[in-house]
Amino acid sequence: MEVNKVVSNLQYSLIRALKEEATNYSDVIDLTVGEPDLETPKEIVLEAFKRAKDIKLSYPPTGGGERIRSLIAKHYNKKYNTNYQTDNIIVNVGASEAISSCFRTILNPEDEVIVLSPFYAGYPPMIELCYAKPVYIDISKYDFVLTPEILEKYITDKTKAILFCNPCNPTGNVMGYEEMKNLANFLAGKDLFIISDEIYSELAFEEFYSFGSFENIKEQLIIINGFSKSHSMTGWRIGYTIFPVKYRKNFLNTTLYTLSSPMAVSILAGEVALEKFDDRSEFKDIYKKRALYLYDELKKLGLEPVKPKGAFYIFVNYSNISKLNSYDFAIDLLKKSKVALVPGIAFGVENYFRISSIYDLPILEEVVNRLKIYIEGN
Amino acid sequence: MEVNKVVSNLQYSLIRALKEEATNYSDVIDLTVGEPDLETPKEIVLEAFKRAKDIKLSYPPTGGGERIRSLIAKHYNKKYNTNYQTDNIIVNVGASEAISSCFRTILNPEDEVIVLSPFYAGYPPMIELCYAKPVYIDISKYDFVLTPEILEKYITDKTKAILFCNPCNPTGNVMGYEEMKNLANFLAGKDLFIISDEIYSELAFEEFYSFGSFENIKEQLIIINGFSKSHSMTGWRIGYTIFPVKYRKNFLNTTLYTLSSPMAVSILAGEVALEKFDDRSEFKDIYKKRALYLYDELKKLGLEPVKPKGAFYIFVNYSNISKLNSYDFAIDLLKKSKVALVPGIAFGVENYFRISSIYDLPILEEVVNRLKIYIEGN
Repeated sequence: MEVNKVVSNLQYSLIRALKEEATNYSDVIDLTVGEPDLETPKEIVLEAFKRAKDIKLSYPPTGGGERIRSLIAKHYNKKYNTNYQTDNIIVNVGASEAISSCFRTILNPEDEVIVLSPFYAGYPPMIELCYAKPVYIDISKYDFVLTPEILEKYITDKTKAILFCNPCNPTGNVMGYEEMKNLANFLAGKDLFIISDEIYSELAFEEFYSFGSFENIKEQLIIINGFSKSHSMTGWRIGYTIFPVKYRKNFLNTTLYTLSSPMAVSILAGEVALEKFDDRSEFKDIYKKRALYLYDELKKLGLEPVKPKGAFYIFVNYSNISKLNSYDFAIDLLKKSKVALVPGIAFGVENYFRISSIYDLPILEEVVNRLKIYIEGN
Repeated sequence: MEVNKVVSNLQYSLIRALKEEATNYSDVIDLTVGEPDLETPKEIVLEAFKRAKDIKLSYPPTGGGERIRSLIAKHYNKKYNTNYQTDNIIVNVGASEAISSCFRTILNPEDEVIVLSPFYAGYPPMIELCYAKPVYIDISKYDFVLTPEILEKYITDKTKAILFCNPCNPTGNVMGYEEMKNLANFLAGKDLFIISDEIYSELAFEEFYSFGSFENIKEQLIIINGFSKSHSMTGWRIGYTIFPVKYRKNFLNTTLYTLSSPMAVSILAGEVALEKFDDRSEFKDIYKKRALYLYDELKKLGLEPVKPKGAFYIFVNYSNISKLNSYDFAIDLLKKSKVALVPGIAFGVENYFRISSIYDLPILEEVVNRLKIYIEGN
C-alpha cells in the first residue's frame, strides 16, 4: 500500500548512517551523536524515583501540571530576564516533540519556515511532514551572523515563521545581543512567528540572551527548551514549549492528539532538576574546556573551526586540507583514522564537519592526534 | 497569527469538559475518564527503578531496543496466536502516540479512514490532523456487529484504512471469531490497511482474537497496543505498534521526527511488566465483576446497556428514561444526581452514555442508587 508521501521520501539520518558505518571498524572514536557523556546528576534520578514510588502514576495533565510549569516559568524568568506565567508553558516529550508539535500547531500546507543553515538535522523533515517548506539562509557565508538586511530577502507572503537555534547545533555559536536586538526590531509586529530553540541555553560559555527577553516580539515568540542537554537527561524525554497565552488551547490540542501527556516520572525528575540543580555551571565549564581545547588544536592543524561559544559541538571547515565533499571526507576519515564525525551536508552546508565533544580530554587528544596523522598522510 | 486550520478548529474534548464541569459540584462520583483505579503492580515500579538507577539513561533507540521488542513479540505470539519478530514492532509513547504516528505514517491528504461509531474520541481529530477524512459506520444500528455487506457500502477509491477498536472503548464489546473471519476474508488483498487498536486485549472477559492471528490479512495489518490498560501504567506512556516489516523504515521515521524515542525508564518498566506480570487475569476479573454488576443493575432500572465483554466501560442506551440529547442528559444527571459520565455524542452516537467502571462495587452501588433516584424523579 502507498504510505504518506513525505514519510516515504524521508532520507535516513546521515548522523545515524555514520554512526552505524562506524560499527564496521574496531577502535573507532565515535563523535557523531549529540549524546553527552556526562551523567544525569544522581540525586535527580534517586529523588524522582523516591517521589514516584509512593504515588499513583496516573495520566499527567496534557502539557504537564501546575507545579512543573510554575518551576519552568520561575527558572526562565530568573535566568533569562523573561516574564512568563504557567499558562505560557506546556511540557512535552523532549524538545523534539516540542518542536515537532510546534510546527504541527502553527503550520498550514505551503507555509514557509526560514531555517538558518547549518541547521539541526531534524528541522527540515519535521517541517516537510507538515506539508510546509523550509527556506534556507546559509549563514556560514555571513560569518554566522544574521542581519535584517539578509533576512529580509527571504521573507515572502508565505513565510509563517523564522527558526533560530541558539546556542546553535551544529556550530556552537551563540547569538550576540546586538544581532538579536536588530532582528527583534526588524521582526516585531510582522505577521510571522519567531521560534527560538534554546535547548542549549544553559551550556552557553559566556553570555546568553533569550529572545524571550525582547518585549517587542513577545506576542509572536515561541521558545523550545528542555532538560536533555542542561541536565544530561536525554533518556527522560522531557522538554517544554513557551508561547503567547492566546495560543494555549492550540498547543495543548496538538500534544493531546499526538501523545496525550508526558510521562509522570519524567515530570517528577524535571521538577527535581529545577528545584535542586538549577545551576548548570559545572556542566558548562566541562564543555567549555573541551571546546576551547579542540578549537585551538584544530586551528593548529590548519583546519578552520567556528569559534565555539556554547553547546558541545565544534563545526570545522576542512577545505584547507581536503577537496572531498563532506560525506566522502567523513567516510575517508573513518576508514583511515577511525574517527567518526558528521559531514556538514547533514546540516545543510558543505566543506564542514561536526565534532561532538562528548568525551573528556584524553580521548579528544587522541582524536586530534588521529586527525594530525590523517592530514599528514593526505 | 493564523495557526494550523485543523488545530484551530479542534473541539475541546467533551470528556474533559464533563470532568471539569463535575468539579463545580461537591460529592460528585466522576466516571468520565478511562483512568483505572487499579494501581500499577508495585513490583513493576520498584524493579524498573532498581534497573534504572544504576545505568546511564541515554536516548533509547528510536522505536525501542531489541529487548523490549523481543518481549512484545513473544507476548503477542504466545497470547494471541501470531507470528511476529522484533522488526515488526516499534515502541511508542503510549498507544496514543502509536495511533497518531500510525495515521501520520500511512495517510495522505484526502484519504479516507473508516471508523466504527461509537468510537474512541481521539480518533477523528488524529485523522483530521493528517488532512484525511473519517468515514463513520454507526454500528449501534447493527447490534454492534459489522458485516462485509455493511462495510462494502463505505469503501471508496479513497479508503486508505479501516480502524477497529477491539475490545471496544466505549462499548466494552469484543468482536467474535466469525465476525472477524468474515471481515478478514472480505478485506484480504484489498488495497487498504486494517488498523486494529487492541489496547484492551488483556481485559477481554472471555475469548479474544487478535486480527494478527488471521494470516490472510497479515501484509495489511497494523496493531496498536500498550501497557496503560493491561497493567494500569497510564502515566508511564508506553505503547507499541506492530506492522508488516516492509513499512518498518516508515514507522521509525515518523516516530523519530515526532519525539526521537520513548522514555528509557518506561521501557524498563515495560520489560518488567512482560517478564513478570504477563498474566493479567487479576485485573480482568475485577473489571468483569464490576461490568456484570453494572449491566444487571442498569437493566433493572429500565436502561439498555450494551452487554460488556471486555475493557472497563458500560455503554448505555437511556432513551427509555429520557428524551434529552446525550450532552444535556449528562449535564442534567450531573446537576441533579452528582454522577459524572460521558454523553454518547462524544463517541459519535446519540441516546447513550458511557460509564467507566473505574471504582469498586461500593461506589458503583452508590452510582446505581443515584441513577435510580434520578429516574424515579424524572
